[in-house]
Amino acid sequence: MSLGESPSSPEFGIEAIRRAAERIAPYVANTPVLSSKVLDAEAGTHVLAKAEALQVTGSFKFRGALNKVLASGPGVRTAGIVGYSAGNHAAAIAAVGRIVGCRAVVVIPTTAPAAKVQNCRSWGAEVVFYDPATQDRAEVAESILAEGNMEFIPPFDDYDIMAGAGTVGLELASELDAAGVTPDAVVVGCSGGGLASGVLTAMEHHFPGIEKYIVEPAGYNKMARSLAAGEVCTNPAPGATVMDGISGPVVGDRCLSVLGRLGVTPLSVDDDEALEAVAAAFRYLRVVVEPAGAASLAAVMSRQLHRSRTYANVALVLSGGNVDPALYGGTISGSGRPFRGALGR
Amino acid sequence: MSLGESPSSPEFGIEAIRRAAERIAPYVANTPVLSSKVLDAEAGTHVLAKAEALQVTGSFKFRGALNKVLASGPGVRTAGIVGYSAGNHAAAIAAVGRIVGCRAVVVIPTTAPAAKVQNCRSWGAEVVFYDPATQDRAEVAESILAEGNMEFIPPFDDYDIMAGAGTVGLELASELDAAGVTPDAVVVGCSGGGLASGVLTAMEHHFPGIEKYIVEPAGYNKMARSLAAGEVCTNPAPGATVMDGISGPVVGDRCLSVLGRLGVTPLSVDDDEALEAVAAAFRYLRVVVEPAGAASLAAVMSRQLHRSRTYANVALVLSGGNVDPALYGGTISGSGRPFRGALGR
Repeated sequence: MSLGESPSSPEFGIEAIRRAAERIAPYVANTPVLSSKVLDAEAGTHVLAKAEALQVTGSFKFRGALNKVLASGPGVRTAGIVGYSAGNHAAAIAAVGRIVGCRAVVVIPTTAPAAKVQNCRSWGAEVVFYDPATQDRAEVAESILAEGNMEFIPPFDDYDIMAGAGTVGLELASELDAAGVTPDAVVVGCSGGGLASGVLTAMEHHFPGIEKYIVEPAGYNKMARSLAAGEVCTNPAPGATVMDGISGPVVGDRCLSVLGRLGVTPLSVDDDEALEAVAAAFRYLRVVVEPAGAASLAAVMSRQLHRSRTYANVALVLSGGNVDPALYGGTISGSGRPFRGALGR
Repeated sequence: MSLGESPSSPEFGIEAIRRAAERIAPYVANTPVLSSKVLDAEAGTHVLAKAEALQVTGSFKFRGALNKVLASGPGVRTAGIVGYSAGNHAAAIAAVGRIVGCRAVVVIPTTAPAAKVQNCRSWGAEVVFYDPATQDRAEVAESILAEGNMEFIPPFDDYDIMAGAGTVGLELASELDAAGVTPDAVVVGCSGGGLASGVLTAMEHHFPGIEKYIVEPAGYNKMARSLAAGEVCTNPAPGATVMDGISGPVVGDRCLSVLGRLGVTPLSVDDDEALEAVAAAFRYLRVVVEPAGAASLAAVMSRQLHRSRTYANVALVLSGGNVDPALYGGTISGSGRPFRGALGR
């Protein structure tokens, strides 16, 4: 099949997310919702943080890839699976390959952090590198698919992937319900839009009218521009943000449609804000979060939600925890000041 | 009252732990049990890690202090509470003070990591420092108690404290049951013995005959010596181990009795082993764990359980996550090698 087609059901909504949750339940961690009175004081609101960095493979990506493969026929499991990503989706494919017992090939940019590459290999996947400055990752993946009759696992623009990611929101809503907390707002990092469209669909269903925010890296706000333009927009070439996990080149067409219908407010955070949030998650929540995974918390801590009104309870997703140890160590050290030399600036 | 007396019930067992669980349920986090296939490959067994570093205040100590205060009469809440510790018990007292709305004073050694002191102050507690080389912390606490008619919250040698800590084991057993996993062994770090006696009582009840291990810092194995001698033994003066949280001077008399009756096997780990475990928890579980909190994992990873037989499933507690940022950053950086310069050696 071509990468441009989708074999998935055209339906997407709360029912698809619920089916995904049932399908993947035996394999995924129901990650905790964490909070800290000290963090709340610093953030100026009660923060309820879904610690998805504690998921298998260290990010939400495991849910979508697993749902995709489990929803596919048995042929997929025989031939194997292929995917590309900045790292977390690749690790998810690697883990799913081991769990369903099939060959897994991951196409990874040469700029990806070493920890993410090692993570894939530890799961037994084959790693194929490409140079994001000179090569098209889709073409690299196509050539592998053509060789082996394997199945492509798209990173985000697919209803099964979006529904799998949406199970994060389903769990978050259930946990908030159980705690008797009604959130005023929900905040989630956004790149292609798979996590955001899934989580915000689930949260809107459970808490109708909740304020819905997506967060992108400053200078890489392709979804904000896509929502404004009503069509798919792209980012500049990556490499100048620590939020590598959410600086990919393009948004998903399906994700854009869902987010447009939901009516989300786009925000952006800079590197320093993201690294401050990484350090805050270390200090107050004791969860290892990568900069892209902390973008949601960074938006809350930098008071971007508080411009028009105040919020009693803000729910957010800490979406991943695969971070280069040197960057992380520098970020949390030095009296809590973020590490500003990571990118030589 | 004198610090030598205990106002608690002389009974201690699974029923006391269950009562504690009911009492503290509205305030504590039910911390997740984490695992990683990559960690399992490195450790040579399936590790099921109760991530108690994600507890309120970042350690299990919150459970015991909260149970103690909630089990006491309303007079305690009026006069306030006092306690001493290397840091995590102090933070727990600080948090409990805020939660029940009473004055809280914590007596902390001048050698405690800055992060732990800051944590206490963030909760609104009064911090009183003492020099562990020249002052007796019990005397310092007594002088504060005498001033204000306040209640002493003992660090470990008290049935309410032990029962509160034991709720970690109760949750761990429930979560293993729910996952259909029967552990062959359970491993827990040990200082005074409050956590170990509580957790191992609960785990023995749910999994009769399970092998029970306690882990101490090499050179600070006061509980191993106490168990061998049948009487309370002490440690040398602290300061030469990174596992500050479990290098206190003395074991609890009640804890020693419980551990003796349970029949536990004592192990010890050195600083490098503890720091390797801290780095492994970062890489594979994405949980921030302090060296003392990682002693249990260090014992498993250094193959100390595997000398006589192999284990399919090993349950353990990652008991705390309040760690100095500079020590932590150095430990996880540098290609995963632990930071050996932390103590100038």
